[in-house]
Amino acid sequence: MLATGFLARRTVLNQPAFNSWSTLLRTARKRPTSTVAARVPLKLQSQQQFTRAYSSSKTMDTPADVFRGITDRFAGVTVDGREENVDKSSFRDKLTKSLDFWTTNKNRAIWFRVYKEQADWVPILAENGFDFHHAKTGVVVMYRWLPEHESSNLPTYAHTLMGVGGLVINEQDEVLVVSDRFAMIPNSWKLPGGYVEPRENLIDAAIREVAEETGIRTEFRSVVSLRHAHGGTFGCSDMYVVIALKPLNLDFTRCEREIARIQWMPIAEYLKHPQVHETNRQFVCTFLDYQKRGLTLTCRDEVHQVLKKKYNLYYVDREQPQEQQDKKNS
Amino acid sequence: MLATGFLARRTVLNQPAFNSWSTLLRTARKRPTSTVAARVPLKLQSQQQFTRAYSSSKTMDTPADVFRGITDRFAGVTVDGREENVDKSSFRDKLTKSLDFWTTNKNRAIWFRVYKEQADWVPILAENGFDFHHAKTGVVVMYRWLPEHESSNLPTYAHTLMGVGGLVINEQDEVLVVSDRFAMIPNSWKLPGGYVEPRENLIDAAIREVAEETGIRTEFRSVVSLRHAHGGTFGCSDMYVVIALKPLNLDFTRCEREIARIQWMPIAEYLKHPQVHETNRQFVCTFLDYQKRGLTLTCRDEVHQVLKKKYNLYYVDREQPQEQQDKKNS
Repeated sequence: MLATGFLARRTVLNQPAFNSWSTLLRTARKRPTSTVAARVPLKLQSQQQFTRAYSSSKTMDTPADVFRGITDRFAGVTVDGREENVDKSSFRDKLTKSLDFWTTNKNRAIWFRVYKEQADWVPILAENGFDFHHAKTGVVVMYRWLPEHESSNLPTYAHTLMGVGGLVINEQDEVLVVSDRFAMIPNSWKLPGGYVEPRENLIDAAIREVAEETGIRTEFRSVVSLRHAHGGTFGCSDMYVVIALKPLNLDFTRCEREIARIQWMPIAEYLKHPQVHETNRQFVCTFLDYQKRGLTLTCRDEVHQVLKKKYNLYYVDREQPQEQQDKKNS
Repeated sequence: MLATGFLARRTVLNQPAFNSWSTLLRTARKRPTSTVAARVPLKLQSQQQFTRAYSSSKTMDTPADVFRGITDRFAGVTVDGREENVDKSSFRDKLTKSLDFWTTNKNRAIWFRVYKEQADWVPILAENGFDFHHAKTGVVVMYRWLPEHESSNLPTYAHTLMGVGGLVINEQDEVLVVSDRFAMIPNSWKLPGGYVEPRENLIDAAIREVAEETGIRTEFRSVVSLRHAHGGTFGCSDMYVVIALKPLNLDFTRCEREIARIQWMPIAEYLKHPQVHETNRQFVCTFLDYQKRGLTLTCRDEVHQVLKKKYNLYYVDREQPQEQQDKKNS
């Protein structure tokens, strides 16, 4: 059932109000005037019932001088700046009245999505006990935890940057390496790669980065290794995933903006080259070991049973019975 | 050399100004009055030179009516609210003078770290062409890209939430499962787990979550699988890593705040239980397959050669020669 799926993992954790935010992003239920219903856990006996309840939405009346917002089933309220019609001069007054209403109503986490053009809301929200939660181009999200005798435990925003590197080896046992134009140490050789874009899958990101930087089109072979480190760019942690790729063409087209040099370097040279970082050597050794052992750290596309959302599963591929392998190869 | 390491991956990518931010977080060089030095790529011939240059810092004079900030070698400037002495009334004027100065000076990305108590800077920065980049409790970071005839390509902030689940199997072939107190579907069984904390390693996070929720102390066995999905909480993607753990005690202590029920469920029952999500069944099957094949998706602690920063490498463990295995087991 759902509770072991990726939604359920989020809805519980340590944070009572966590559900609210999670639910809220997917539903459009308006804040009820009473939160009794909102605080009763849904008693759903089947996925069918769940799916119905989850996708249902109700619009409730709220006083005209209170922000409408969207309420989740854990009595949180999110006010989206684009959905609220209020000029700057009346913002402060409406906020005061809304906070009174929400407090009486026993609402819990109050979230404000403030758009760049509403930046003058920010100091007023800060004066009223709101803090920053996260932001991206065009919008900052501020929150206030209303219950006074309970700690908030709201989840922090994402703090992990995802990057990928492509380990592209051709049939002549040569590795595709690049020297970055703006490299900290010129003349050093690294794997082509870069950041995973929002909503992009790891393998797609590796294939895209290799193509952008080198013009080499590739297809997936195996995930090789993950490197996880802390205290990087923007104070984030980062996860760098190396993915082995098979080249579909051999003549590279250098991305002049980013790349100073490209070459196919024989593996033997790569493994002892003074301008190749030790970790990258390990990636190659690891992949060679996988090849020797017939291992693939693979990826499978799946769709969530209930949410109908796509996800990718990465795992070491099952050993196939010899007859199946023969069939596949024939 | 460094350029294949995790810093270098960041310093290049598609973003010319990316280096600036990255460098800036680790150095304390004050903005020079001339940026000539800042725009010349460092020509470093060795790791020793690099390490020296990287850790050096210089304080330069700036006009008194201009924010001092910190300049990086790509001519970006970061102004940290806590380092600047300016009251609200003079903020606007100082900002105007600073922008003139930075424009003349050919500076590129301008970053402002604005703390909650300085929230009244936010609308003034927005009026002056600044946008939100990221935020967390207590601070919002706003930026403006100065060059008019060049696209910014500044990197987006982290957009991936990291979560872990603990697959704890005891010697009686029973799986540790929990039913969450606030589960969307009551009575469903999931793996104990939750979010990875900032700066926390995956295995530590899994061990911590299992202990917090169930009181079962564990040790690492193998990473099992990664699940990557998009469009989750806060609009982020999420990476959920399942880690097989060996229990060190068997009597659980339920976390009453989060967990409704705990049990050791026989694997055979788990694999056909109607209230276990299909994906979780796959995790168990995958781990059983690893056990049968003697596979471990392991983690090794490493330290970066140049930066002396710790990182974790995850990969399928090498097969050990039989004699080494015998020695290990003896």
